[in-house]
Amino acid sequence: MNIKVIAFDADDTLWVNEPYFRRTEEKFCNLFSEFLPTHDIERELLKIEIGNLGLYGYGIKGFVLSMIETALRITDGQINTQAIEKILALGKELLNEPIELLEGVEQVLQSLQDKYRLVVATKGDLLDQERKLKKSNLLQYFHHIEVMSEKDDASYQKLVKHLDIQPNELLMVGNSLKSDILPVLNIGGHAIHIPYHITWVHEMVENQVEHDNFKSVTHIQEVLQYIAL
Amino acid sequence: MNIKVIAFDADDTLWVNEPYFRRTEEKFCNLFSEFLPTHDIERELLKIEIGNLGLYGYGIKGFVLSMIETALRITDGQINTQAIEKILALGKELLNEPIELLEGVEQVLQSLQDKYRLVVATKGDLLDQERKLKKSNLLQYFHHIEVMSEKDDASYQKLVKHLDIQPNELLMVGNSLKSDILPVLNIGGHAIHIPYHITWVHEMVENQVEHDNFKSVTHIQEVLQYIAL
Repeated sequence: MNIKVIAFDADDTLWVNEPYFRRTEEKFCNLFSEFLPTHDIERELLKIEIGNLGLYGYGIKGFVLSMIETALRITDGQINTQAIEKILALGKELLNEPIELLEGVEQVLQSLQDKYRLVVATKGDLLDQERKLKKSNLLQYFHHIEVMSEKDDASYQKLVKHLDIQPNELLMVGNSLKSDILPVLNIGGHAIHIPYHITWVHEMVENQVEHDNFKSVTHIQEVLQYIAL
Repeated sequence: MNIKVIAFDADDTLWVNEPYFRRTEEKFCNLFSEFLPTHDIERELLKIEIGNLGLYGYGIKGFVLSMIETALRITDGQINTQAIEKILALGKELLNEPIELLEGVEQVLQSLQDKYRLVVATKGDLLDQERKLKKSNLLQYFHHIEVMSEKDDASYQKLVKHLDIQPNELLMVGNSLKSDILPVLNIGGHAIHIPYHITWVHEMVENQVEHDNFKSVTHIQEVLQYIAL
């Protein structure tokens, strides 16, 4: 391995994210429990979210718009305005959540920062991701932050070109096989998977990954075992 | 002048944008004309938009969320759900607007592309701006697109560092004195202003600009008069 750049996914790799979304979803379902059981609301919301992804992209604002659309759909026009107000408030709450770093993150970045160019490669709303990075106090470790509208082969190819390195000089570390691992392996890069205990169903993949450039670890500190310091 | 990179603002510099927002705003006001006169709705919407900018940032999704919040506020809970549905639809309509290039844009980019590194420097939603650039068929002229969460001195300093040039090697071309011109002059860059016939009130500045590195033109083709080809 001749790694020059280590890219870290942010949400659920550096800090807690999905649990906040889940909690919001739960509160959302509770608002409409008289109309439909939680499970059905969740299914409807997911369908609408995925249907809107192409137009809204990833991130909280699109999620809020999809919650409102779902609310209108499941209540068939019987929704009261307080519920819509509540959804807007849930969105603002989510945007204001504190940053809770995952264990070991800062220590790993400290160990790596002098040997490698470190970047953040994340999906989501630009401003929101920048704000989270600022709140995380991790800004000092990173050369820059790359907010990507999609994490597929083409976008990693663009990232590599942009970083002015060869694909096999990139190591990506993240919690999503679909977004952080598979496309990076596809373009010839290296990838380390750190599964997080909750994954959004849209990010799930069925396959087991077997690849020379791939490792799976349970804790971010194990990353240090695989790269020269 | 020893310009290496020419950065173009996108909305209302390369293509039509603000008129689409205005038309949407008009339709929004018409939805609630029984509650308040247009002027008062516009004022309320602007207040809420600006109040939300720090949290939502620029772009259509935040605009739609602010329209919904405004609707709840001005109807004092008397809103019907069709109106909310209509607002969501207005947002999707806005995201799907066609790209209408401003006159002369492509010709200017063609003339410049071999001599300068051209980039797009724009605010707004990441995915939306990328999609518009793709739809514009201008992608081929640009080295890359920089979607910025804010256009202030600090963000232009970051851009210059990122482009690996000195501030005085940057020329920014755009329609907003506040976002495209003043901060670039502040950090020592060059700027050409091309006023557009409509400007969002939040982007307006009172002052006349007088600066050695500043030019104002009425048409993008005049940019070619000021730089070596």
